[in-house]
This record gives sequence, structure tokens and C-alpha cells, in this order.
Amino acid sequence: MLRGMNKPTASLRSVCAALALLLVGGVAAQPALAASKRPARASKPAAKAAEPRSPGDVLKASPDADWRGLDPQNTLLMELPQGRVLIELASRFAPQHAANIRALAHEGYFDDLAILRVQDNFVTQWGDPNGDDAKLAKPLGAASGHVPAEFSVPLKGLPLTRLRETDGWAPMNGFVDGFPVAADPKTGRAWLAHCYGMVGAGRAQEVDSSTGAELYAIIGQAPRALDLNITVVGRVLQGIEFLSALPRGGENMGFYDKPEQRTTIKSVHLLADLPEAERPQLQVLRTDSRTFSELLEARRHRSGWYVHSPERVDLCSSSVPTRPVPAAAPAAAP
Amino acid sequence: MLRGMNKPTASLRSVCAALALLLVGGVAAQPALAASKRPARASKPAAKAAEPRSPGDVLKASPDADWRGLDPQNTLLMELPQGRVLIELASRFAPQHAANIRALAHEGYFDDLAILRVQDNFVTQWGDPNGDDAKLAKPLGAASGHVPAEFSVPLKGLPLTRLRETDGWAPMNGFVDGFPVAADPKTGRAWLAHCYGMVGAGRAQEVDSSTGAELYAIIGQAPRALDLNITVVGRVLQGIEFLSALPRGGENMGFYDKPEQRTTIKSVHLLADLPEAERPQLQVLRTDSRTFSELLEARRHRSGWYVHSPERVDLCSSSVPTRPVPAAAPAAAP
Repeated sequence: MLRGMNKPTASLRSVCAALALLLVGGVAAQPALAASKRPARASKPAAKAAEPRSPGDVLKASPDADWRGLDPQNTLLMELPQGRVLIELASRFAPQHAANIRALAHEGYFDDLAILRVQDNFVTQWGDPNGDDAKLAKPLGAASGHVPAEFSVPLKGLPLTRLRETDGWAPMNGFVDGFPVAADPKTGRAWLAHCYGMVGAGRAQEVDSSTGAELYAIIGQAPRALDLNITVVGRVLQGIEFLSALPRGGENMGFYDKPEQRTTIKSVHLLADLPEAERPQLQVLRTDSRTFSELLEARRHRSGWYVHSPERVDLCSSSVPTRPVPAAAPAAAP
Repeated sequence: MLRGMNKPTASLRSVCAALALLLVGGVAAQPALAASKRPARASKPAAKAAEPRSPGDVLKASPDADWRGLDPQNTLLMELPQGRVLIELASRFAPQHAANIRALAHEGYFDDLAILRVQDNFVTQWGDPNGDDAKLAKPLGAASGHVPAEFSVPLKGLPLTRLRETDGWAPMNGFVDGFPVAADPKTGRAWLAHCYGMVGAGRAQEVDSSTGAELYAIIGQAPRALDLNITVVGRVLQGIEFLSALPRGGENMGFYDKPEQRTTIKSVHLLADLPEAERPQLQVLRTDSRTFSELLEARRHRSGWYVHSPERVDLCSSSVPTRPVPAAAPAAAP
């Protein structure tokens, strides 16, 4: 019977096409952008006061002090043919892996290596295509061939900004330095959670067999079963789309069938090893700031397009915004 | 001090390179494949008996009765230049949208339309690039221009195979016909969950403004805040990688900057509209089967590479396996 109604009005088609502008309000990785295309809200001041602030509103009102720059000693710039990927190292959680990765980047270890594997809804992984062949493998140089497992750290003393929601994977969770962290007060341990964009150090059977020379990034639903089983070393701050949009490999587990399908890594540099003028200028919202806490509130309480407010966020859907370093404020008028 | 240890042994490099073969054991979309590259387990029968079965072991032992074929009236084949995408319609949850999408596919509505938007860690969306222009928009033909919102269904009577774990997004969840379902006994409602690979019908501000002519698939961390806000119409059974690996759009919310960046859809057919010989031959594991329940158990209890067993699965990380229709069993020996 519905098929009889076959003449959609122009106005309906028009709003249908506008869907995308609205759909994303809830989960945009960059709510500030989403807000810019959002239809204007009711202009009555009374209605405005009653409505919760949108994530975009919160970010727009954020003080500069709630943002931080990048630590050049702690940030990697990976150059791919597709674009630049910025990775922040988790030095607090995996100090020895971070030191080893710094040493590898410093000597150009990753330059001309390749993306070896892309498995849909799981990981993109890169390293030495000849890593398995002792004769052909690229030497680690000044970096270490043995690094201890760094799966967790003491919870005590950790500056955890707690999230009130838990997702069942750990009794406690929240953020430290922008990283998603799970914790268990019973064991007194805390660990980095395998959320989208997190970067880990591949290992073999032995827990201490990762060196940071082979790395992976999460590109799908958070595979939290990996937590506490492998050393997580950082997270992608910018450019994850150059890792997540790569063709999936045709072999088991997403390995590429043929070497020519691999993406060659042009270079991976520690920002500190680059001239200052060449370092990307990016700011990250502080997760211990009032703005971040207000952003989570805005994501919990939805209105406008939403007819059912989720009244909830969770660890792995709470992305941390970044922004270009703002231009210096103009001098105050005389 | 670690940098002094600069001579990794060949054997260590070798196991490092093998990481990827092991890493995935826990979360492979197709555990059967993952298992095939997994190192042989200890061959001592005693050790074998004590060890939990792997997901691959469970699938290998599954009886044919635990698998089902595709319903030609309920399955779409989308042909992209990159490959084929199979989508199963959720007729039990969104019968009127499913009927409308069937009508659209039947008349070739989607043929030569395009993928308009790919937003990283969120959605890939397709439809009519001219949908916003009443003069240029492709007519919906025999399909309806108005379909009611189908956000939830009564929980009562629903054949829900419950998952014992919840993730905080709903007090109850599980599977119906292979679909991930959340439910609330207090409201008596159940709804499809926005997990990876789920397909929804874009809508504008009005809850009943979706027709199925504009569709999206989830390609990142489950955006569960969308649940109960939009009509979910199906899920991708096969070929999600052709939607998830597309270049992200450069405009706000992942829209492509230029028309030539869009991927053109060759065709979308209902399997029932295709000659039998051209219908893809695929089987889906029944989520109400003993095999699926054993598979979840195997995913909960990990050993081997895992040093910390998660003792948990959750709704959106519990993918449902598919397999090619097995060749007919050879006639019994005389």
C-alpha cells in the first residue's frame, strides 16, 4: 500500500538530502566542524536557554588554556604517500618502548619500510617486510632488540580523569594525558585501552618480544580483548584516515598478497628531530580540563535532531578533539 | 641504557615478524581463517584437553544445520567498482523500510547513484547526488516517498538469543536473525544496535523523513548514540571492506569536495531479481545455534598467545561468521 504513495514532495527530498548534515551531530570526531553545518537553532532566547549546549558550542567557548601543544620529544610524524600521520607516544605508560621508538625514528629506521597488513575492522600494521629474514632484515641500529613488556602501570598516583560510565571491560576508566585508560582498583593496575586510533607494538608469543619496530593502529571497533596482552605505545592524533582507508589485504589477517600492494612509508620523524618550522602545529584538548568535561556532558545530553538522548558516553567513543594552533591574538586596541 | 643493547638476535626478529599471525586470534572477523595460520598448539593430549577451544576449532566442528542460506527476498547485492557488497535487510525490525528498499532496488533506483560521503570512524553514505534538487532528483518510481519511522519493536515475542554481557548502552542485548539487538524490559522495546557494518536509512529533522533511498553503513567504533534515533534497515554480510576502505571526503562530515571523488554504484539488486545462477552463494551462522554460543565462549576464554583472558565479549565485537556454501557432501561409500 505504501508503494502507491509514489510522489515525494520536493521539500521532503530536500530535507532527506540534508540528512548527513544532521546525522553526525552526535558522534563527529570534530564536533566543531559538525556544528558549523548544523541548522540554526530556534532563535527565541527562552528556548535557547533551555536547550543543552552542543559539542560545537562547548568547543567554540573553550579558553586557550584548556588546549596544549605537542611535545616534540613525544610526537612522531609519519609521512605516507596519502598524507601525514601524527602519533603521540604514551611515555607514561610504555616508557621503554617510547624510548626505543624514539631511537628507531631518530636513525630513520622506519623510512622506506612499509604497511604490511590492513585487516578490516581491526588493525593497520607496519614494519620491515623482511623482518622475518635474518639476512635481509633492517638492523635496529642504536635501538634495542629487547624491551620489557609494558602492559600496565600502577593505578596509584595516576592523574586519571574518571569517566562516570563504564563499559564492562574494566571497573574504572577515564583519561590520562588524552589517552583512554582502563583500571582495576582491586589489582591496583591501569592500562591503555585499545580504542580506535590507538597504536601498539606487535609481539610474538613471548610477552617481551615487542621492540616498537613493528607497530599497529586500531581501525575498527575497539578490540578490547587485546588489553593487558600487548604493549600500547601511543595514539594517532591526526591522519588516522590515511591508515584506515587503505585497501584491505587479501591474505589471511589482512596481509597483502603481493609486495607491490604495500604502501611504502616515506619517513617517520620525531618532531624534535625536525627543524621547528617543519613541525606540524596542532593543539590537543586537555582531558583534565573543564572544556573536556563539558564536552562529554554535551555528548551525553542530545537534543535537536535527536529524539532519544543517549544520556551516556563511553571510553572508546569519547574522542579527544585537536585543532590547529590559533593565530596569535591581535594586539589589544589602544 | 637500553640503547646499548643493539644487537637483536635473528631468532627474535623472526618471532617479531610473526606477530601478525598471532595478534588477530582474538578478534578476527573470520576466526576460521585466523586459526589456519595459528601456530600448532602443544601436541601433548593432556595439555590439549585442558585448553579451551579456539574460535577456529569451534567453527571447524560446526554442523551444517547451524548455518543458513540467504533469503533472496531479503538480500541486496550492491556492485561497486571495488567489489561486491551483500546486505541483509532487517525485515523483522523495519518491514516498511525493507519493502521500500526492495521496491527501489527492483526498479534500479540505486544504479548509477553514488557514494556521497565517507567520514572516518563513522559512516559511508550513498544515494542520489542530486537528491537535494527537486528538478534533478531521480524519481522514486513505485517506491514510497513517505515511510514511518521504525526505530524499535516490541520486545515481547522477539526470539532474542541473549548475551550475558551488557555494555552500558542497554539493560539487555543479544541477537535476532544474526542482527545485534539491544532491549529494555522496562519500556518493553527492542531495537537494532549501531554496530560495525550495520546499515541505516538517513533521515532529516523529521523522524519519518527516511525512505531508504539514502543509506549509510557504520565503518568505525559503534556510534550507539544513534540507536533509537534513526531506522536501521540491515547489515553488511560481506564486502564491508569496499565501503570502509574508501577515501574519506574532505568536506565537513566526510562529504567529497568534488563530484569526481565519488564512487559510482554500478547497481543494487535484490537477489530475488537476479537469475539463480548469479546469486552469491553464502551461508550465515545461525545466532540461535549451539555453534554461535560456543563461539562466544571461545572468544571469552583465551589462551595461547593471550596471557590475560578477557573473560568477556560484547554485542558490537561479536561478529557473526559467514562462509561459502559448502560443496555437496560426496555420496556415502558403498
